[in-house]
Amino acid sequence: MNKTVLAELRQTLGDGRVSTAPEDLAAYAYDGTWAEMRPDVVVHPQETAQVIAVLRIADAARVPVVPRGSATGLAGGAVPVEGSICLNLARMNRILEVSVPDTVAVVQPGVITQDLQRAAERLGFFYPPDPASVYQCTIGGNVATNAGGPRCLKYGVTGDYVLGLEVVLAGGHVLRLGGRTIKDVAGYDLKRLFIGSEGTLGVVTEITVRLIPKPAAQLTALAAFPRLADACAAVGNILQAGIVPLVTELMDQGTTRAIEDFKHLGLPTDVEALLLVAVDGDADLVQREIAVVADVLKRSGARDLRHARTAEESEALWEARRNVSPAIARLARNKLGEDIAVPRSRIPEMVARLGEIGRAHDLRIIVYGHIGDGNLHPTILCDRRDAAMMGRVAKAAESVLEAAVSLGGTLTGEHGIGIFKREHVPLGIDGNVLAWMAGVKALFDPNGIMNPGKKLPG
Amino acid sequence: MNKTVLAELRQTLGDGRVSTAPEDLAAYAYDGTWAEMRPDVVVHPQETAQVIAVLRIADAARVPVVPRGSATGLAGGAVPVEGSICLNLARMNRILEVSVPDTVAVVQPGVITQDLQRAAERLGFFYPPDPASVYQCTIGGNVATNAGGPRCLKYGVTGDYVLGLEVVLAGGHVLRLGGRTIKDVAGYDLKRLFIGSEGTLGVVTEITVRLIPKPAAQLTALAAFPRLADACAAVGNILQAGIVPLVTELMDQGTTRAIEDFKHLGLPTDVEALLLVAVDGDADLVQREIAVVADVLKRSGARDLRHARTAEESEALWEARRNVSPAIARLARNKLGEDIAVPRSRIPEMVARLGEIGRAHDLRIIVYGHIGDGNLHPTILCDRRDAAMMGRVAKAAESVLEAAVSLGGTLTGEHGIGIFKREHVPLGIDGNVLAWMAGVKALFDPNGIMNPGKKLPG
Repeated sequence: MNKTVLAELRQTLGDGRVSTAPEDLAAYAYDGTWAEMRPDVVVHPQETAQVIAVLRIADAARVPVVPRGSATGLAGGAVPVEGSICLNLARMNRILEVSVPDTVAVVQPGVITQDLQRAAERLGFFYPPDPASVYQCTIGGNVATNAGGPRCLKYGVTGDYVLGLEVVLAGGHVLRLGGRTIKDVAGYDLKRLFIGSEGTLGVVTEITVRLIPKPAAQLTALAAFPRLADACAAVGNILQAGIVPLVTELMDQGTTRAIEDFKHLGLPTDVEALLLVAVDGDADLVQREIAVVADVLKRSGARDLRHARTAEESEALWEARRNVSPAIARLARNKLGEDIAVPRSRIPEMVARLGEIGRAHDLRIIVYGHIGDGNLHPTILCDRRDAAMMGRVAKAAESVLEAAVSLGGTLTGEHGIGIFKREHVPLGIDGNVLAWMAGVKALFDPNGIMNPGKKLPG
Repeated sequence: MNKTVLAELRQTLGDGRVSTAPEDLAAYAYDGTWAEMRPDVVVHPQETAQVIAVLRIADAARVPVVPRGSATGLAGGAVPVEGSICLNLARMNRILEVSVPDTVAVVQPGVITQDLQRAAERLGFFYPPDPASVYQCTIGGNVATNAGGPRCLKYGVTGDYVLGLEVVLAGGHVLRLGGRTIKDVAGYDLKRLFIGSEGTLGVVTEITVRLIPKPAAQLTALAAFPRLADACAAVGNILQAGIVPLVTELMDQGTTRAIEDFKHLGLPTDVEALLLVAVDGDADLVQREIAVVADVLKRSGARDLRHARTAEESEALWEARRNVSPAIARLARNKLGEDIAVPRSRIPEMVARLGEIGRAHDLRIIVYGHIGDGNLHPTILCDRRDAAMMGRVAKAAESVLEAAVSLGGTLTGEHGIGIFKREHVPLGIDGNVLAWMAGVKALFDPNGIMNPGKKLPG
């Protein structure tokens, strides 16, 4: 990297916030994927003014900037690009305000999602978005990817809670968008452009989220379905019974067997699927609702129904779901975790296609997901040392995306495009639409310094 | 208008879908405001292909196009501009699909909002957005203004239900955005740019909305508050009790007196405010919740609490709220209905400012609104024949907007900018942000034919 740029960064931010030490460059070369690229420099701003300075200097010198929070992402979005500045926002981690009268919180992007959840809960409120990495991931990263999780059928995604954003654009221009009201129709909703843009349009430096009252109770049922299609239909049947479940987590037979081999929970491994259903809300109501859910599950074809009557019993049922990732990790040296979403009615067909794709490419694909919102995580087991296998994995992954799109779904429900799906974007988004997306990118980042080579196809 | 353009429109759409008859031009000159401008021609497309043709012809000839649904808007957004084509979407009024397994509906823009609500309810589902004009307004208009209503604290605004859009841009380019899944993070969220853009970026020709299960019951309480500030605090207290009310409608003393003079419902007219609170959901739960609400209202300073125990009793309480508009209409020859939103904690201060503004300009301002989401409708009583008074009305209206912004609020919560607030936009939106909004407009509508002179300042 140009020495002048480094000198300018050091002069503006101070030496302690700029590092080119090899151990730092190595530490910031990763995210939650197997991708790796060292940045030329890592900067650690602590306030918006410093982010502005970085984006001014970088834009003038045409140096790429890759923002990151905790880098738990699963699409390579926060992995540095060649010759880039890694903009580490983890030190901007203050909860600026939790307002009881306005039921909003104002936070910096580096706040860990669970810390916001806890700050809200201490005051009797609830911040529903709950991505799997909630203990490590940041709100800024959640906004950048419009993060989801298991609760989205009932409570929506991260973007549904964002009322206001402060964004710094390439060149250091600051936009304050939205505010702290649910209703605001002055101007265009630019805020939503930045939500889910994976750091390619600007850097979010402050976030105002709305909070809701904390539900009093939560109860869970775990059902074994001989036929996976029946588990999918059961979710629709629960909705038709007037209940919006908090979570509806599907685990296929491969997933269930992996958990059972790992944890010996006594799960039925001879069925096509397990379905974990939870409801939350008023304490009396959830007791009645979980009974209705149990009844609907039985009528929908469930066997071996476990119906928690206490919070402790619920915890025991969650044990299975919580062990999905470590259990799958034991099955193979590597895995490619996919993240498609399809209309709920098409899930059984999608799962059947996954079986066909696995057989066609001689690969094992297991699947679990948040089926209430149609979001499935097909996981292709593999070994990165086996080049021939990895060639088949790439083809199978493309077939998975093609299948999802052909069923009316999307390439990514919650992980994002990052670098891993970048070249597949035209499978899911029309060229006409992509041209306007490229126009938006050029408008907000005319020199193309913001996280280049991510999100949109090259 | 250029004869060639008219001939092209006639040739492409057919004579029955193109009118220049004076009675048609007069009929399409209005919306829900007092603004008036005749278009040069009215076209009545029945399918997307015809909208494409109109926007291709208009863009080539640089003729402005003003889309409209039922034109119930309160900001002048659907009032034609000089020399324009009025694009009447009312005949594109088919409900294309209500899918039970996917819990979505797919509709054309001219569908009346209540028709969609009823179609959903027939299948046990619920489409929550409920703008006051629900019997006349169209879904396309609701999307164009991101329409709100009284249920937004609990259920959000129109845009929160839109999963997918088909949009036709100037020049006839078609974008299909989003789909039928809650989760979709492929590409930028262009869909949200069009929601609330008031026809200035493109024309929405198909809408996919998500539905939710229909709540089983709804109950209501009406409370009289000697102090308006206590009514505002009561809403926060209800949330802190763990209940998200369906509606929280505030009526100030002026509004209450107008209703009482009109309908003689026996409302207390010696208090500063009435607050109507409703809860919805499970039938047993709403019984318990309305009791908690009643208790919170009393503890918050309510007097004369009427607490409905049946649906019929609830209906009687709604009688007051439903008569707000006709009751106010009797008070003066004309009225200017404002539509600000402020953070909930600032409502008492905002109401105090309205009193000061009214006194300063020798005008009567009454106020009602959806206070759970901070949305107030200050209404300035006036007589358009009195030029001096109307000068004071204009100044007072500007002061209302300034006050809302100074309290952290917005110029418009749900009505939109249209033509009426266009020149006031810089009060509420920073020049830097406006410049990027203008950039977005130029990107999607380079020749500026889409509803020019609306939404953004000139």
